[in-house]
Amino acid sequence: MTTNKVSVGVSGRHVHVSREHLDVLYGQGYQLQPMKDLSQPGQYAAKELVDLVTEKGTFKNVRILGPERKQTQIELALTDSIKLGINPPVRDSGDLKGSPGLTISGPKGQVTITEGVIIAGRHIHMTPDDAAKFGVKDKDIVKVKTGGPRAVIFDQVLVRVNPAYSLELHIDTDEGNAAMLKNGEIVEVIK
Amino acid sequence: MTTNKVSVGVSGRHVHVSREHLDVLYGQGYQLQPMKDLSQPGQYAAKELVDLVTEKGTFKNVRILGPERKQTQIELALTDSIKLGINPPVRDSGDLKGSPGLTISGPKGQVTITEGVIIAGRHIHMTPDDAAKFGVKDKDIVKVKTGGPRAVIFDQVLVRVNPAYSLELHIDTDEGNAAMLKNGEIVEVIK
Repeated sequence: MTTNKVSVGVSGRHVHVSREHLDVLYGQGYQLQPMKDLSQPGQYAAKELVDLVTEKGTFKNVRILGPERKQTQIELALTDSIKLGINPPVRDSGDLKGSPGLTISGPKGQVTITEGVIIAGRHIHMTPDDAAKFGVKDKDIVKVKTGGPRAVIFDQVLVRVNPAYSLELHIDTDEGNAAMLKNGEIVEVIK
Repeated sequence: MTTNKVSVGVSGRHVHVSREHLDVLYGQGYQLQPMKDLSQPGQYAAKELVDLVTEKGTFKNVRILGPERKQTQIELALTDSIKLGINPPVRDSGDLKGSPGLTISGPKGQVTITEGVIIAGRHIHMTPDDAAKFGVKDKDIVKVKTGGPRAVIFDQVLVRVNPAYSLELHIDTDEGNAAMLKNGEIVEVIK
Protein backbone atom coordinates (compact mmCIF):
# COMPACT_ATOMS: atom_id res chain seq x y z
CA MET A 1 0.00 0.00 0.00
CA THR A 2 1.37 3.39 -0.94
CA THR A 3 -1.78 5.45 -0.52
CA ASN A 4 -0.22 7.67 2.12
CA LYS A 5 2.67 8.71 -0.13
CA VAL A 6 2.87 11.96 -2.07
CA SER A 7 5.61 13.64 -4.09
CA VAL A 8 6.95 17.08 -3.27
CA GLY A 9 6.88 20.19 -5.42
CA VAL A 10 8.99 23.08 -4.11
CA SER A 11 7.77 26.46 -5.39
CA GLY A 12 10.23 29.31 -5.78
CA ARG A 13 8.99 32.90 -5.70
CA HIS A 14 6.73 33.58 -8.66
CA VAL A 15 4.07 35.84 -10.09
CA HIS A 16 0.54 35.26 -11.39
CA VAL A 17 -0.69 38.19 -13.50
CA SER A 18 -4.05 39.59 -14.41
CA ARG A 19 -4.85 40.50 -18.02
CA GLU A 20 -4.94 44.16 -17.07
CA HIS A 21 -1.48 44.09 -15.51
CA LEU A 22 0.03 42.00 -18.32
CA ASP A 23 -1.13 44.72 -20.73
CA VAL A 24 0.95 47.25 -18.78
CA LEU A 25 3.98 45.04 -18.10
CA TYR A 26 4.38 43.46 -21.52
CA GLY A 27 2.13 45.54 -23.78
CA GLN A 28 -1.50 45.62 -24.84
CA GLY A 29 -2.83 42.16 -25.74
CA TYR A 30 0.47 40.41 -25.06
CA GLN A 31 0.16 36.61 -24.75
CA LEU A 32 2.25 34.66 -22.22
CA GLN A 33 4.59 32.16 -23.89
CA PRO A 34 4.53 28.77 -22.16
CA MET A 35 8.07 27.54 -21.46
CA LYS A 36 7.46 24.46 -19.33
CA ASP A 37 4.37 22.63 -18.11
CA LEU A 38 3.89 22.46 -14.34
CA SER A 39 2.56 19.44 -12.51
CA GLN A 40 -0.96 20.85 -12.23
CA PRO A 41 -2.78 20.45 -15.57
CA GLY A 42 -3.00 23.66 -17.61
CA GLN A 43 -0.47 25.49 -15.45
CA TYR A 44 2.87 26.48 -16.94
CA ALA A 45 6.02 28.45 -16.31
CA ALA A 46 6.02 31.27 -18.85
CA LYS A 47 9.06 32.64 -20.65
CA GLU A 48 8.20 36.08 -19.28
CA LEU A 49 10.06 37.55 -16.29
CA VAL A 50 9.44 40.66 -14.20
CA ASP A 51 11.27 42.50 -11.45
CA LEU A 52 9.74 42.88 -7.98
CA VAL A 53 10.63 46.20 -6.38
CA THR A 54 10.14 47.69 -2.91
CA GLU A 55 11.84 50.56 -1.11
CA LYS A 56 14.17 48.07 0.52
CA GLY A 57 15.11 45.76 -2.32
CA THR A 58 14.57 44.21 -5.72
CA PHE A 59 14.28 40.69 -7.05
CA LYS A 60 15.16 40.67 -10.71
CA ASN A 61 13.85 38.17 -13.25
CA VAL A 62 11.05 36.57 -11.28
CA ARG A 63 9.07 34.15 -13.42
CA ILE A 64 5.42 34.57 -14.36
CA LEU A 65 3.33 31.41 -14.13
CA GLY A 66 0.43 31.09 -16.57
CA PRO A 67 -2.32 31.20 -17.46
CA GLU A 68 -3.53 34.68 -16.51
CA ARG A 69 -5.55 35.03 -13.31
CA LYS A 70 -8.37 37.30 -12.25
CA GLN A 71 -6.10 39.07 -9.77
CA THR A 72 -2.33 39.48 -9.77
CA GLN A 73 -0.78 37.37 -7.01
CA ILE A 74 2.85 37.19 -5.92
CA GLU A 75 4.07 34.25 -3.88
CA LEU A 76 7.24 34.72 -1.85
CA ALA A 77 9.07 32.76 0.80
CA LEU A 78 9.54 34.54 4.14
CA THR A 79 13.28 34.77 3.37
CA ASP A 80 12.37 36.72 0.21
CA SER A 81 9.92 38.93 2.11
CA ILE A 82 12.58 39.91 4.64
CA LYS A 83 14.88 41.01 1.82
CA LEU A 84 12.08 43.15 0.41
CA GLY A 85 11.12 44.55 3.81
CA ILE A 86 7.49 43.48 3.59
CA ASN A 87 5.40 41.26 5.81
CA PRO A 88 2.99 39.14 3.76
CA PRO A 89 0.55 36.80 5.51
CA VAL A 90 0.45 33.03 5.09
CA ARG A 91 -2.57 32.52 2.83
CA ASP A 92 -4.19 30.08 0.48
CA SER A 93 -3.97 31.00 -3.18
CA GLY A 94 -6.52 33.66 -4.15
CA ASP A 95 -7.06 34.94 -0.58
CA LEU A 96 -5.34 38.30 -0.96
CA LYS A 97 -7.44 40.72 1.10
CA GLY A 98 -5.25 42.91 3.30
CA SER A 99 -1.98 41.49 1.98
CA PRO A 100 0.82 43.94 1.11
CA GLY A 101 1.73 45.17 -2.35
CA LEU A 102 4.87 46.13 -4.25
CA THR A 103 5.93 47.39 -7.66
CA ILE A 104 6.18 44.98 -10.58
CA SER A 105 8.43 46.07 -13.43
CA GLY A 106 8.20 44.60 -16.93
CA PRO A 107 9.78 45.52 -20.27
CA LYS A 108 6.90 47.82 -21.26
CA GLY A 109 5.85 49.31 -17.96
CA GLN A 110 5.42 49.18 -14.22
CA VAL A 111 2.45 48.32 -12.01
CA THR A 112 2.25 49.11 -8.31
CA ILE A 113 -0.22 46.80 -6.61
CA THR A 114 -1.59 47.66 -3.18
CA GLU A 115 -2.30 44.05 -2.27
CA GLY A 116 -1.48 40.61 -3.66
CA VAL A 117 1.75 39.47 -2.01
CA ILE A 118 1.38 36.30 0.07
CA ILE A 119 3.38 33.47 1.54
CA ALA A 120 1.53 30.44 0.22
CA GLY A 121 0.19 28.08 2.84
CA ARG A 122 1.41 24.55 2.25
CA HIS A 123 -1.11 22.31 0.61
CA ILE A 124 -1.68 19.04 -1.20
CA HIS A 125 -3.39 18.90 -4.56
CA MET A 126 -5.36 15.74 -5.16
CA THR A 127 -8.23 14.31 -7.18
CA PRO A 128 -11.44 13.00 -5.58
CA ASP A 129 -10.09 9.47 -6.20
CA ASP A 130 -6.87 10.33 -4.33
CA ALA A 131 -8.91 11.87 -1.51
CA ALA A 132 -10.96 8.69 -1.18
CA LYS A 133 -7.76 6.61 -1.00
CA PHE A 134 -6.26 8.94 1.62
CA GLY A 135 -9.53 9.09 3.54
CA VAL A 136 -9.63 12.89 3.46
CA LYS A 137 -11.84 15.56 1.94
CA ASP A 138 -11.41 19.04 0.49
CA LYS A 139 -10.19 21.61 3.07
CA ASP A 140 -9.09 18.96 5.58
CA ILE A 141 -5.89 19.76 7.46
CA VAL A 142 -3.34 16.95 7.56
CA LYS A 143 0.25 16.44 8.59
CA VAL A 144 3.12 15.44 6.30
CA LYS A 145 6.16 13.54 7.55
CA THR A 146 9.55 13.76 5.84
CA GLY A 147 12.77 11.80 6.38
CA GLY A 148 16.53 12.33 6.38
CA PRO A 149 18.85 14.36 8.60
CA ARG A 150 16.42 17.26 8.68
CA ALA A 151 13.26 15.25 9.12
CA VAL A 152 10.19 17.29 10.00
CA ILE A 153 6.47 16.84 10.30
CA PHE A 154 4.67 19.70 8.57
CA ASP A 155 1.45 20.47 10.42
CA GLN A 156 -1.37 22.59 9.00
CA VAL A 157 -1.22 21.16 5.48
CA LEU A 158 -4.38 22.01 3.57
CA VAL A 159 -5.99 19.35 1.37
CA ARG A 160 -7.29 20.72 -1.92
CA VAL A 161 -9.44 18.34 -3.96
CA ASN A 162 -10.34 18.89 -7.60
CA PRO A 163 -10.78 16.46 -10.50
CA ALA A 164 -8.30 18.58 -12.50
CA TYR A 165 -5.51 18.31 -9.92
CA SER A 166 -2.46 16.09 -9.93
CA LEU A 167 -1.36 14.57 -6.61
CA GLU A 168 1.43 16.71 -5.12
CA LEU A 169 2.49 18.47 -1.91
CA HIS A 170 3.33 22.13 -2.54
CA ILE A 171 5.77 23.86 -0.21
CA ASP A 172 7.96 26.91 -0.67
CA THR A 173 11.74 27.20 -0.80
CA ASP A 174 12.09 27.96 2.92
CA GLU A 175 10.19 24.81 3.79
CA GLY A 176 12.04 22.77 1.17
CA ASN A 177 15.44 24.00 2.32
CA ALA A 178 14.65 23.63 6.03
CA ALA A 179 13.66 20.00 5.50
CA MET A 180 16.19 19.47 2.68
CA LEU A 181 13.50 18.32 0.29
CA LYS A 182 13.79 18.44 -3.48
CA ASN A 183 11.20 18.28 -6.22
CA GLY A 184 9.87 14.77 -6.68
CA GLU A 185 10.91 13.41 -3.31
CA ILE A 186 8.32 11.21 -1.65
CA VAL A 187 6.85 12.08 1.74
CA GLU A 188 4.13 10.58 3.89
CA VAL A 189 0.71 12.01 4.74
CA ILE A 190 -0.42 11.53 8.34
CA LYS A 191 -3.91 12.34 9.51
CA MET B 1 4.26 22.60 34.59
CA THR B 2 6.45 24.18 31.96
CA THR B 3 9.31 21.69 31.90
CA ASN B 4 8.70 20.80 28.27
CA LYS B 5 9.02 24.40 27.06
CA VAL B 6 12.15 25.91 25.50
CA SER B 7 12.88 29.22 23.81
CA VAL B 8 14.13 29.48 20.24
CA GLY B 9 17.39 30.95 19.00
CA VAL B 10 17.61 31.40 15.23
CA SER B 11 21.21 31.44 13.98
CA GLY B 12 22.08 33.37 10.86
CA ARG B 13 25.15 32.42 8.83
CA HIS B 14 28.31 33.01 10.84
CA VAL B 15 31.97 32.21 11.21
CA HIS B 16 34.08 30.75 14.03
CA VAL B 17 37.78 31.41 13.48
CA SER B 18 40.98 29.74 14.60
CA ARG B 19 43.83 31.83 16.01
CA GLU B 20 45.91 31.03 12.95
CA HIS B 21 43.26 32.27 10.53
CA LEU B 22 42.46 35.36 12.58
CA ASP B 23 46.15 36.28 12.28
CA VAL B 24 45.80 36.23 8.50
CA LEU B 25 42.36 37.85 8.25
CA TYR B 26 42.81 40.65 10.79
CA GLY B 27 46.57 40.73 11.44
CA GLN B 28 49.06 38.99 13.73
CA GLY B 29 47.84 38.84 17.34
CA TYR B 30 44.55 40.60 16.61
CA GLN B 31 41.95 40.22 19.37
CA LEU B 32 38.24 39.85 18.57
CA GLN B 33 36.14 42.70 19.98
CA PRO B 34 32.97 41.45 21.70
CA MET B 35 29.93 43.38 20.45
CA LYS B 36 27.05 41.44 22.02
CA ASP B 37 26.80 38.46 24.34
CA LEU B 38 25.04 35.39 22.97
CA SER B 39 22.72 33.19 25.01
CA GLN B 40 25.38 30.55 25.65
CA PRO B 41 27.76 31.77 28.41
CA GLY B 42 31.11 33.07 27.13
CA GLN B 43 29.95 33.18 23.51
CA TYR B 44 29.63 36.53 21.78
CA ALA B 45 29.02 38.20 18.45
CA ALA B 46 32.23 40.02 17.57
CA LYS B 47 32.50 43.36 15.84
CA GLU B 48 34.60 41.73 13.15
CA LEU B 49 33.12 40.79 9.78
CA VAL B 50 34.53 38.80 6.87
CA ASP B 51 33.45 38.01 3.33
CA LEU B 52 32.77 34.43 2.23
CA VAL B 53 33.76 33.82 -1.38
CA THR B 54 33.28 30.93 -3.81
CA GLU B 55 33.46 30.75 -7.61
CA LYS B 56 29.71 31.17 -7.72
CA GLY B 57 29.06 33.91 -5.22
CA THR B 58 30.00 36.06 -2.25
CA PHE B 59 28.42 36.89 1.07
CA LYS B 60 29.78 40.19 2.33
CA ASN B 61 30.03 41.18 5.99
CA VAL B 62 29.40 37.84 7.68
CA ARG B 63 29.88 38.10 11.42
CA ILE B 64 32.54 36.28 13.41
CA LEU B 65 31.35 34.71 16.67
CA GLY B 66 33.87 34.52 19.50
CA PRO B 67 35.84 33.29 21.21
CA GLU B 68 38.40 31.72 18.87
CA ARG B 69 38.07 28.00 18.18
CA LYS B 70 40.56 25.25 17.44
CA GLN B 71 39.33 24.98 13.88
CA THR B 72 37.66 27.55 11.66
CA GLN B 73 34.00 26.63 11.14
CA ILE B 74 31.43 28.30 8.93
CA GLU B 75 27.73 27.70 9.50
CA LEU B 76 25.38 28.37 6.60
CA ALA B 77 21.74 27.72 5.89
CA LEU B 78 21.02 25.59 2.81
CA THR B 79 19.61 28.69 1.10
CA ASP B 80 23.02 30.35 1.61
CA SER B 81 24.85 27.26 0.36
CA ILE B 82 22.85 27.20 -2.86
CA LYS B 83 23.83 30.81 -3.54
CA LEU B 84 27.49 29.91 -3.02
CA GLY B 85 27.21 26.75 -5.13
CA ILE B 86 28.51 24.44 -2.40
CA ASN B 87 26.94 21.44 -0.74
CA PRO B 88 27.80 21.31 2.97
CA PRO B 89 26.59 18.40 5.10
CA VAL B 90 24.27 18.70 8.10
CA ARG B 91 26.63 18.28 11.03
CA ASP B 92 27.00 18.93 14.72
CA SER B 93 29.37 21.74 15.63
CA GLY B 94 33.02 20.66 15.43
CA ASP B 95 32.37 17.68 13.14
CA LEU B 96 33.96 19.07 9.99
CA LYS B 97 35.68 16.12 8.33
CA GLY B 98 34.92 15.95 4.62
CA SER B 99 32.91 19.17 4.61
CA PRO B 100 33.57 21.69 1.81
CA GLY B 101 35.70 24.82 2.04
CA LEU B 102 35.66 28.31 0.62
CA THR B 103 37.68 31.53 0.73
CA ILE B 104 37.38 33.88 3.71
CA SER B 105 38.39 37.46 3.08
CA GLY B 106 39.28 39.90 5.88
CA PRO B 107 40.75 43.40 5.94
CA LYS B 108 44.34 42.11 6.21
CA GLY B 109 44.25 38.95 4.12
CA GLN B 110 42.49 35.93 2.71
CA VAL B 111 42.34 32.31 3.82
CA THR B 112 41.12 29.45 1.66
CA ILE B 113 39.97 26.57 3.81
CA THR B 114 39.53 23.10 2.31
CA GLU B 115 36.98 22.01 4.87
CA GLY B 116 34.90 23.64 7.60
CA VAL B 117 31.58 24.67 6.03
CA ILE B 118 28.55 22.95 7.55
CA ILE B 119 24.81 23.28 7.92
CA ALA B 120 24.37 23.04 11.68
CA GLY B 121 22.14 20.23 12.86
CA ARG B 122 19.38 21.56 15.08
CA HIS B 123 20.00 21.05 18.76
CA ILE B 124 18.94 22.04 22.26
CA HIS B 125 21.46 23.34 24.78
CA MET B 126 20.61 22.47 28.38
CA THR B 127 22.14 22.00 31.80
CA PRO B 128 22.10 18.65 33.65
CA ASP B 129 19.27 20.08 35.79
CA ASP B 130 17.25 20.91 32.68
CA ALA B 131 17.95 17.43 31.30
CA ALA B 132 16.66 15.84 34.50
CA LYS B 133 13.48 17.95 34.31
CA PHE B 134 12.97 17.03 30.64
CA GLY B 135 13.80 13.37 31.29
CA VAL B 136 16.51 13.30 28.61
CA LYS B 137 20.28 12.85 28.49
CA ASP B 138 23.17 14.16 26.43
CA LYS B 139 22.99 13.07 22.74
CA ASP B 140 19.34 12.03 22.95
CA ILE B 141 17.27 12.84 19.88
CA VAL B 142 13.96 14.55 20.58
CA LYS B 143 11.21 16.27 18.64
CA VAL B 144 10.18 19.90 18.98
CA LYS B 145 6.66 21.10 18.24
CA THR B 146 5.90 24.66 17.14
CA GLY B 147 2.61 26.51 16.69
CA GLY B 148 0.99 29.07 14.41
CA PRO B 149 0.04 29.02 10.73
CA ARG B 150 3.28 27.27 9.82
CA ALA B 151 3.32 24.79 12.68
CA VAL B 152 5.88 22.01 12.32
CA ILE B 153 7.36 19.27 14.41
CA PHE B 154 11.14 19.25 14.04
CA ASP B 155 12.39 15.69 14.27
CA GLN B 156 16.05 14.76 14.81
CA VAL B 157 16.78 17.46 17.39
CA LEU B 158 19.99 16.68 19.28
CA VAL B 159 20.11 17.22 23.04
CA ARG B 160 23.41 18.70 24.24
CA VAL B 161 23.91 18.75 28.00
CA ASN B 162 26.61 20.78 29.74
CA PRO B 163 26.63 22.66 33.07
CA ALA B 164 27.81 25.77 31.16
CA TYR B 165 24.87 25.79 28.77
CA SER B 166 21.75 27.92 28.82
CA LEU B 167 18.45 26.28 27.83
CA GLU B 168 17.71 27.06 24.18
CA LEU B 169 16.73 25.43 20.88
CA HIS B 170 19.12 26.39 18.08
CA ILE B 171 17.86 26.34 14.51
CA ASP B 172 19.04 28.12 11.38
CA THR B 173 17.33 30.80 9.31
CA ASP B 174 15.79 28.30 6.87
CA GLU B 175 14.18 26.44 9.72
CA GLY B 176 13.15 29.64 11.48
CA ASN B 177 11.62 31.11 8.33
CA ALA B 178 9.90 27.87 7.28
CA ALA B 179 8.21 27.64 10.68
CA MET B 180 7.95 31.45 11.08
CA LEU B 181 9.78 31.36 14.39
CA LYS B 182 11.61 34.29 15.89
CA ASN B 183 14.23 34.53 18.58
CA GLY B 184 12.75 34.01 22.02
CA GLU B 185 9.56 32.29 20.92
CA ILE B 186 8.58 29.33 23.08
CA VAL B 187 8.24 25.84 21.63
CA GLU B 188 7.53 22.43 23.10
CA VAL B 189 9.86 19.45 23.41
CA ILE B 190 8.30 16.06 22.67
CA LYS B 191 10.09 12.82 23.31
